[in-house]
Amino acid sequence: MSTSEIDRLIRLMGKLPGLGPRSARRVVLHLIERRESVMMPVLDALAEVVENVRLCGTCGNVDTTDPCAICNDQSRQENVICVVETVGDLWALERAQAFRGRYHVLGGVLSALDGIGPDQLNIDDLIPRAARPEVTEIILATNATVDGQTTAHYLAERLHETDVQISHLARGVPVGGELDYLDDGTLTTALASRRRD
Amino acid sequence: MSTSEIDRLIRLMGKLPGLGPRSARRVVLHLIERRESVMMPVLDALAEVVENVRLCGTCGNVDTTDPCAICNDQSRQENVICVVETVGDLWALERAQAFRGRYHVLGGVLSALDGIGPDQLNIDDLIPRAARPEVTEIILATNATVDGQTTAHYLAERLHETDVQISHLARGVPVGGELDYLDDGTLTTALASRRRD
Repeated sequence: MSTSEIDRLIRLMGKLPGLGPRSARRVVLHLIERRESVMMPVLDALAEVVENVRLCGTCGNVDTTDPCAICNDQSRQENVICVVETVGDLWALERAQAFRGRYHVLGGVLSALDGIGPDQLNIDDLIPRAARPEVTEIILATNATVDGQTTAHYLAERLHETDVQISHLARGVPVGGELDYLDDGTLTTALASRRRD
Repeated sequence: MSTSEIDRLIRLMGKLPGLGPRSARRVVLHLIERRESVMMPVLDALAEVVENVRLCGTCGNVDTTDPCAICNDQSRQENVICVVETVGDLWALERAQAFRGRYHVLGGVLSALDGIGPDQLNIDDLIPRAARPEVTEIILATNATVDGQTTAHYLAERLHETDVQISHLARGVPVGGELDYLDDGTLTTALASRRRD
């Protein structure tokens, strides 16, 4: 049988997203059986991340420097701030290489069900950032979910006090999307927002 | 964008069984966003396993002691040794709580394709263990795959020099198995090995 140390690691790993008790067992066994080639490098990399990675005090991104590399990058536009729910969303936009401005990570969305109000999110810092003279546009890129849109609506209200331009991501048929598999809401939106050539 | 430390951890995690680049990204982000509550405990548990867990020199199990808790447990039968391919198989049998003897972990199977011969497996230690006077039975519990059965056949040959009883796990319909979904090989075996009331 496995020992308490191994059991503890399996239990902790089994709570990570996408892993359960069975897959955590497989992962831990894989680690133990490849002590030098896999487990030591993973331990080492994890320790480095624990040691060095911090939240950026400006935008809420994670990085080894504060301000983060994006906030420090002088070649990026200072006038546009893209507001996202999570660091994962920020990573997704960066992978797409479609945006060269700055970010603001909320750290979640407003949710009455989960008891998440404005105070639990990184909102208070956004207003003074948006009010800075060089900032001309705020893109509200929260998810297209009910909570995401509620949050965007709330932010738009709050940002009215600044005279910044507010924008949202376009809605419509995703690239490669087949109409037959899309939900009615997306089809209705795509039709209503249709573009004329 | 993520930093090199984070990228390295994602790359390493993405090579673990059951994880890919996308799920590794999710796991790493989950860890970073829960530094105190999740990432530190995982780091701690992993460090403890790296520090304390070793292979048992007797049976090949993993444990904090050598010999392992199973080899040390005087309440377990000394006369039966169950030979398994991996520690994962040993864990599975222990979870079933169906066996109270000792184990011997081969660390793999003979495989011409993967170039794994007897020297790469923990076989040489098995023969003297089987030859000890208190040992009366060796259960060859390798997997019911071609390589697993080849290995069992090879082990049976090698063990002929000792006068130990050799046995195999029974073959047949798994508990809860529906005939309609079973392969022909299992059905043929189950029929041929049928028991009369």
